[in-house]
Amino acid sequence: MTRSRSAAVLVIGNEILSGRTRDANLQTLAGALARRGIRLAEARVVEDRFEAIVHALNALRSTYDFVFTTGGIGPTHDDVTTECVAAAFGRSVVEDPEAVRRLVEYYPAGQLNDARLKMAHVVAGAELIDNPVSAAPGFRVENVFVLPGVPRILEAMLPDVVARLPAGTPIASTAVMAWVRESEIATALGEVQASHPGVDIGSYPFARDGRLGTSLVVRGTDAAARDAATQAIRAMLEARAVEYTVDSAP
Amino acid sequence: MTRSRSAAVLVIGNEILSGRTRDANLQTLAGALARRGIRLAEARVVEDRFEAIVHALNALRSTYDFVFTTGGIGPTHDDVTTECVAAAFGRSVVEDPEAVRRLVEYYPAGQLNDARLKMAHVVAGAELIDNPVSAAPGFRVENVFVLPGVPRILEAMLPDVVARLPAGTPIASTAVMAWVRESEIATALGEVQASHPGVDIGSYPFARDGRLGTSLVVRGTDAAARDAATQAIRAMLEARAVEYTVDSAP
Repeated sequence: MTRSRSAAVLVIGNEILSGRTRDANLQTLAGALARRGIRLAEARVVEDRFEAIVHALNALRSTYDFVFTTGGIGPTHDDVTTECVAAAFGRSVVEDPEAVRRLVEYYPAGQLNDARLKMAHVVAGAELIDNPVSAAPGFRVENVFVLPGVPRILEAMLPDVVARLPAGTPIASTAVMAWVRESEIATALGEVQASHPGVDIGSYPFARDGRLGTSLVVRGTDAAARDAATQAIRAMLEARAVEYTVDSAP
Repeated sequence: MTRSRSAAVLVIGNEILSGRTRDANLQTLAGALARRGIRLAEARVVEDRFEAIVHALNALRSTYDFVFTTGGIGPTHDDVTTECVAAAFGRSVVEDPEAVRRLVEYYPAGQLNDARLKMAHVVAGAELIDNPVSAAPGFRVENVFVLPGVPRILEAMLPDVVARLPAGTPIASTAVMAWVRESEIATALGEVQASHPGVDIGSYPFARDGRLGTSLVVRGTDAAARDAATQAIRAMLEARAVEYTVDSAP
């Protein structure tokens, strides 16, 4: 089993920390990275503040193979991500001619005002990332991908982002939905985990139609190891006459 | 205007980083903190790994007035938060007699097994936080509140958590929903922000019924400053004949 590459997500936005908006991009990125065989190891959410963004970005880009920022690359005064990424790398912010060309093509004649032109500003030396929705590109600088906060635009950019990442063995999971409280099987489940170190087994209680159950999630890159651990969980549940269903997600 | 106290949330859970689960607790905590006048300044999501949790917890508790952890205090092998908090503080893990009493009272006679008893383990010197749903308590150590990951249990614990926090001036917001693309008003909006430094003004594009609009959110502790900035935004929109509605949220 080769080592999975690691990644972090940096969510930039007061609206998430105020409680006004529930973040959706972390889950989207997490799924795409897992399918590409990249382990999302950490996420941070910071305010739209220069020092906070630069500090977090430098911490994450020196720790993980890849960092994905979301938010703060629009046309308004609270969009400060590009200048923060530039500062973190000690580079300047430049107007990218190809980004300008895309904006000129996108907006009706005469409507490319100064605020819109700001969206053609990227960090010097960056590669552009395609935005099929509204033209204003994301960009990549070394191991940092700078993406928008609007979920439908971020999703539309993902194919171009993923194509720039090395393809590893997908990290997949199998979920066993068991009609038992997790505290009744906790010791036995711990033994299954101990004897299957090649996978991560998570235990998540749920309530459905007034009944309590536990979702037992087996996760890893090695399909045979996942199958063996899933089999061990099924045997453990059957020995206790616990009802369950198995759900394999890609 | 007195300085708002600051807080961070530390979400502990592989299920969030794998994309399996979309976190709900950050938004819940953010709203409760804002109403108590506490500024949520950062959030982190880490894996269920000892070093990752201890490192993040020590960074956050030395930076912010309060830290709220979610997840990892259940009965299974992947619940490692309590031992991590203990390690971060250089304290031991102890079985709390009052927590045991609550679990004894909650479970039917003879059903308090070893895994369930694990939920009475807290960091030495901790104060218990009431769990009206399933008895197993959260706890507080100095400026760190250790809370569960299951959203309905976390929500049920919030009244007891909030009662232990100092009451400041609530951080409130007013949202002006304007039927205009943010890039058309970006420069004017930046001028409103510059002349109203006592509030934070955020700009968030949205699409509804096929129309594009922008939500302009004025946020701060000072009601008069919020009203003045909101008034300036309305005047700016009216000067451009932009339709809008105003929504005051507590």
